[in-house]
Amino acid sequence: MGEGWFREAVETEGLAFSLAIEEKIHDETSAYQRIEVYRTSHWGKLLALDGCVMLTERDEFFYHEMMSHPAIFAHRDPRQVAIVGGGDCGILREVLRHDGIEHVQQIEIDERVTRVCEQHFPQLCIANDDPRAELRFTDGVEWVKGMPEESLDLMIVDSTDPVGPAAGLFTEEFLSATRRAIAPGGIVVQQSESPLLHRDSVIVPLHQAAAAAGFDGIHTLTFPAPGYPSGWWSATLMVNGGDPRNFRAEDSAEKGFATRYYNADIHRAALATPELLKF
Amino acid sequence: MGEGWFREAVETEGLAFSLAIEEKIHDETSAYQRIEVYRTSHWGKLLALDGCVMLTERDEFFYHEMMSHPAIFAHRDPRQVAIVGGGDCGILREVLRHDGIEHVQQIEIDERVTRVCEQHFPQLCIANDDPRAELRFTDGVEWVKGMPEESLDLMIVDSTDPVGPAAGLFTEEFLSATRRAIAPGGIVVQQSESPLLHRDSVIVPLHQAAAAAGFDGIHTLTFPAPGYPSGWWSATLMVNGGDPRNFRAEDSAEKGFATRYYNADIHRAALATPELLKF
Repeated sequence: MGEGWFREAVETEGLAFSLAIEEKIHDETSAYQRIEVYRTSHWGKLLALDGCVMLTERDEFFYHEMMSHPAIFAHRDPRQVAIVGGGDCGILREVLRHDGIEHVQQIEIDERVTRVCEQHFPQLCIANDDPRAELRFTDGVEWVKGMPEESLDLMIVDSTDPVGPAAGLFTEEFLSATRRAIAPGGIVVQQSESPLLHRDSVIVPLHQAAAAAGFDGIHTLTFPAPGYPSGWWSATLMVNGGDPRNFRAEDSAEKGFATRYYNADIHRAALATPELLKF
Repeated sequence: MGEGWFREAVETEGLAFSLAIEEKIHDETSAYQRIEVYRTSHWGKLLALDGCVMLTERDEFFYHEMMSHPAIFAHRDPRQVAIVGGGDCGILREVLRHDGIEHVQQIEIDERVTRVCEQHFPQLCIANDDPRAELRFTDGVEWVKGMPEESLDLMIVDSTDPVGPAAGLFTEEFLSATRRAIAPGGIVVQQSESPLLHRDSVIVPLHQAAAAAGFDGIHTLTFPAPGYPSGWWSATLMVNGGDPRNFRAEDSAEKGFATRYYNADIHRAALATPELLKF
């Protein structure tokens, strides 16, 4: 980091992204990772884990909306939801905007991430006290293995990059356990990195692992993510039967809550497959 | 620039983007701007004008395809085309993939940009010797004023940022002259910066200037642009009569040439308006 800048370099891609900072607000090393919070000059507060930008207040809505609403509207009536990871609580906030959701379990391995966000990013944590929300702090891979069969309508896998603690979330073993826990008609959505940078290293292998795990409808959607490497990101939908591109378009068009990126047209748009993602 | 990195900082947005470089290949100051070419570690060659990333070999296809094919397929039968700016010739290459195009004039103010690209980016310049291509090196604003009325089917405005030499391309005066030069059913497409960073400073004023100039169909489309600030970019379509969202979907689906981002589904997707761009 140079003076006055938070800089995230991706050496394996020869790129770096920097945000001008005014002040370091928080810096701790938890049992799992380094957790830093900065006040930036133009992007609000910044949360970094192990030196990687997780979110800024200015652009977090892209990722949190697109990890939530497309999967929710692709399910006919989701009630029981689990979020694996998601410690900053931004996805939890978006999920609980949907009145039909009855229960959301969030399985974050590092409680400190959630506590730091409750302190410094209260707007991400507005749903933490919702009676439908249940925060658990344990290992998501183990937790999924212990879930009763067919007990979830929707699982959202909001992991960090598929190295280190999150590597286990991109395996056939995890996806098989996930599939077991999903009820008929259920959906899994998993963040799947940059379509430009990680097509062959993450997206294609994730499709293969999902197919091997028995999912028969698998589709990757794309969206902007200015704070992540390449500025372009993806999420992969997986279903047991059916086509994950179908969604409740009328419900989406009359969603009844405010968003900053997502709407029904954007839902359809995110489903379009660019030439470079055809495989 | 730090050692081994080309760094573009956008001070007014508190962000910077850096690419690891291996070698400086070219550096000159033309009558209009500084022109630099680098060999990067992971992004092929990089062209920078006045310190701003114009393109890398790895990601230029997003911008060049999306500045060309949506506008061309939105016209029922485009034959006479002008490109204002476009000195790197990447848009010219994409336009001339369409067999129906009879003549393309490219009006670039700085001949040195084109000559440097012919030398260092030959894959951008494959259409420069096409008999349908005519390269002119003069001021685009003045040139448009001198065009015969209704002589063009399509004008593509491929400018640098709307400051300095390109500022005149974002004015009602220029757009009025452009509208005069466009035949009935004609289309103008203009690069309009980042939907996240430049909504109020560029996109909204461009819509207002286009409406004041008499265009009655104005629509902004969005697409990824990893090398540009925020990684997310826009182009604004303007038409005299009709809806710029309509396009020849069957022709697009059977386009008969290869692309890396654009296809008919992506065309539709780019037309979707995110919540933050509703105004």
